Amino acid sequence: MKFRPIFYIQGLLLIFVGISMIFPAAFSWYYGDDDIAALLISAGLSIGIGLLLYFPLRFKGELRIRESYAIVTLGWIVCSLAGSLPFYISGYIPSFTDAFFETMSGFTTTGASILNNIEELPHGLLFWRSLTQWLGGMGIIVLSLAILPLLGIGGMQLFRAEIPGPVADKLTPRIQNTAKLLWIVYVVISAVEAILLMFGGMNLFDSLCHTFGTMATGGFSTKNTSITAFGSAYIDYVIIFFMILAGTNFSLHYHGIRGNLLTYWKNEEVKFYLAIILICSVIVTIDNLTSVYPNISDSIRYSLFQVVSITTTTGYATADYEQWSSTGQFIMLFLMFIGGSAGSTGGSIKVLRIMIVLKHGFAELKRIIHPHAVIPVRVNGQVISPNVVNNIFGFIFLYFSILVFVTWLMTILGLDLVSAFASVAATLGNIGPGLGTVGPADNYSQIPIIGKWILSFCMLAGRLELYTVLLLLTREFWKH
Amino acid sequence: MKFRPIFYIQGLLLIFVGISMIFPAAFSWYYGDDDIAALLISAGLSIGIGLLLYFPLRFKGELRIRESYAIVTLGWIVCSLAGSLPFYISGYIPSFTDAFFETMSGFTTTGASILNNIEELPHGLLFWRSLTQWLGGMGIIVLSLAILPLLGIGGMQLFRAEIPGPVADKLTPRIQNTAKLLWIVYVVISAVEAILLMFGGMNLFDSLCHTFGTMATGGFSTKNTSITAFGSAYIDYVIIFFMILAGTNFSLHYHGIRGNLLTYWKNEEVKFYLAIILICSVIVTIDNLTSVYPNISDSIRYSLFQVVSITTTTGYATADYEQWSSTGQFIMLFLMFIGGSAGSTGGSIKVLRIMIVLKHGFAELKRIIHPHAVIPVRVNGQVISPNVVNNIFGFIFLYFSILVFVTWLMTILGLDLVSAFASVAATLGNIGPGLGTVGPADNYSQIPIIGKWILSFCMLAGRLELYTVLLLLTREFWKH
Repeated sequence: MKFRPIFYIQGLLLIFVGISMIFPAAFSWYYGDDDIAALLISAGLSIGIGLLLYFPLRFKGELRIRESYAIVTLGWIVCSLAGSLPFYISGYIPSFTDAFFETMSGFTTTGASILNNIEELPHGLLFWRSLTQWLGGMGIIVLSLAILPLLGIGGMQLFRAEIPGPVADKLTPRIQNTAKLLWIVYVVISAVEAILLMFGGMNLFDSLCHTFGTMATGGFSTKNTSITAFGSAYIDYVIIFFMILAGTNFSLHYHGIRGNLLTYWKNEEVKFYLAIILICSVIVTIDNLTSVYPNISDSIRYSLFQVVSITTTTGYATADYEQWSSTGQFIMLFLMFIGGSAGSTGGSIKVLRIMIVLKHGFAELKRIIHPHAVIPVRVNGQVISPNVVNNIFGFIFLYFSILVFVTWLMTILGLDLVSAFASVAATLGNIGPGLGTVGPADNYSQIPIIGKWILSFCMLAGRLELYTVLLLLTREFWKH
Repeated sequence: MKFRPIFYIQGLLLIFVGISMIFPAAFSWYYGDDDIAALLISAGLSIGIGLLLYFPLRFKGELRIRESYAIVTLGWIVCSLAGSLPFYISGYIPSFTDAFFETMSGFTTTGASILNNIEELPHGLLFWRSLTQWLGGMGIIVLSLAILPLLGIGGMQLFRAEIPGPVADKLTPRIQNTAKLLWIVYVVISAVEAILLMFGGMNLFDSLCHTFGTMATGGFSTKNTSITAFGSAYIDYVIIFFMILAGTNFSLHYHGIRGNLLTYWKNEEVKFYLAIILICSVIVTIDNLTSVYPNISDSIRYSLFQVVSITTTTGYATADYEQWSSTGQFIMLFLMFIGGSAGSTGGSIKVLRIMIVLKHGFAELKRIIHPHAVIPVRVNGQVISPNVVNNIFGFIFLYFSILVFVTWLMTILGLDLVSAFASVAATLGNIGPGLGTVGPADNYSQIPIIGKWILSFCMLAGRLELYTVLLLLTREFWKH
């Protein structure tokens, strides 16, 4: 293990995080809030420490796979540590555990909050809180489309971005090129959403914050009552539309923006993803029609919003689905395990994996009836090898093993069964709101301190496709 | 598809079920109860219809795989239909749905009951109710150790009984020989348990009924309060010991009874199975010590009993685990997905599958770190092929898919989320008691009629390793 490149890149990240804090500081200055000092001190600290790591350790050369695991995991932790400084230093989140939880929730695009009164935070901190999500989403797109596919774990090889770029033996130029193109796409779509939200009556500040939360499938709002606060069907539908975009593979958006709209239609994962949203929305709409919203347009609006918000793992709310019937609650819980598309900012297990496993299941049934037939599993015309299917099964099994193990830990901390399970499902899946005491009308403030650290770990592990984080915990990994 | 052998064997089964009803009729006569007529009429009907199928369709020849699927699934349904006659004809269970549910619950060794007052049933019906479990257990041992392994689904090939027998190309003599030896083992262990229970003060009737429930990991009792009614630590520990035996691979007992006790010690699945029971019992005992049972011997006794009862999928109760802390409840829910050993009368996913998947997971982690190393998964020294691992993953995924789908159906029928989930987990896993409105202190009587049929289907599918039943529902299966 070479530690030099690992720390060198942490230095780079710290400088980047520090510079990013200038934007919230500008809002703070504009609104005359009292958090500007905390933001500037945090920026200074981050940049300072970053420079101290950057210059002495500057490194040119290729990274090995092991180092890249360590860089990614450590990177998310270091960014969250630095990112929690403004909350802590300003005193608005007096507990460091809470500040770290909130920031990890931001950078992992989870959206789980410990804030009981979001609106008491000054503009700078609110903007920073939303910005961490947007930056985390940017990181995830590159990670899942350009870096992790090279490692071939959990079926990640299928997430590969098919973006033209320099065909190089060397990893770095390829990643840099892909990253640049994907970020342009991310920025362009974000800009469109922000403008559309301003048309709906949001000011620049709210529009940017909610764009960050949407595009990252994060779900942090500037309002205590989330999107409900704006009470606008137009805003609801704009956010629904952009949540759907954010939950779609960004390499498709790259082709889409270049005018090739057929790219969406030809992609099986997109169809499967939209079918899940459609079917679940119809079921929930009908169910809600008979119980909660007698008005059809209300029922569609609120059902669709909640379904899209949970499927894409965003976590914005315009209704408290815990007030729905048990069917509605069940569908929401079910969707927590589907997640966004591969290569999107969405979390959880991901549509692609679910789709391949289902296809494999049907192929297996046919194989039992015709033991001598060759029945391959295909996605977008490409044959999926049994090895990849095995990787994906392994990923899903690991996902549920962590879920079960951590749920047990949470029950020991005194959570009831439903809340324990839902808190882990909602953080491991980077969703945010769960059920029970961590439902959409509640938050994570009442979780015991140790539980907040455990759930922070879940957000990190879930965001980095489990293996990236878990490998670092094995002794094997550190040998030689 | 040849229908002749299918119906011929159903005839044989009906004759067998009819003859079995003579035993409860004898108890009914001894106790002078009013159910003797219903039992004898049912016996006559079963034997009569059985003979009508048997003689005209007599068949000698080899069965193909497809027919064997149909025979097994139809066999369990036909036995449950015939077996429900005494309850229905006697009027003690006036709803046919309920009578069928109760009998399917018996033959599948589930132990889920719709009876609000078990003790109001006469002796003959109670004995018949328990006997269905014992017969079902007998059927399962042969099915899982001799028949299904030949079909190689869901990793069943690993369940194979290693019992010496005529090495024949033909299926039938091999199965018959294996079946005979396994049944002797089953009868011998049952006889020992019945005698030990009588030493504890049970009369012959209760001792036989509870032996049937134990050995089949069924869980039907003759008392409203299950094993609690006997209030004896001796009886509790005898039943704990025999539940553990019943949850162990019966081909090991075959070798064990012949004096080769090392066979248990050398078997990895046994060690893993006992380790799960031990670890979970310790956790639950400590947890209960601080909350429910301040006395250590009480805490061990009640915790161990409930852990063993759920792990082995028996479902006998000496305590209401819904009164335990959320950690205790969580462990019970967790154990519902482990189940007994391969080739035991226990249901659910089975220890062997869980163990292989875990071993595969660890091998996979090592493989990611050392991409070029060959790291095989071994059980009892034997290398498990990736194909078998894939089969097992497929089985587990199918298991949870059914669980999720049927839970959704149950929420539509109006069950709350926890009860819906637990009712499906407890029937699919052939356990019996669940959580919520189907917890150990409640029963299944309040489930809507359609729900009882759905759950009956779950018991059947779970008992027959899913594929056996599900394949019959595919169009592919019936082609040509």
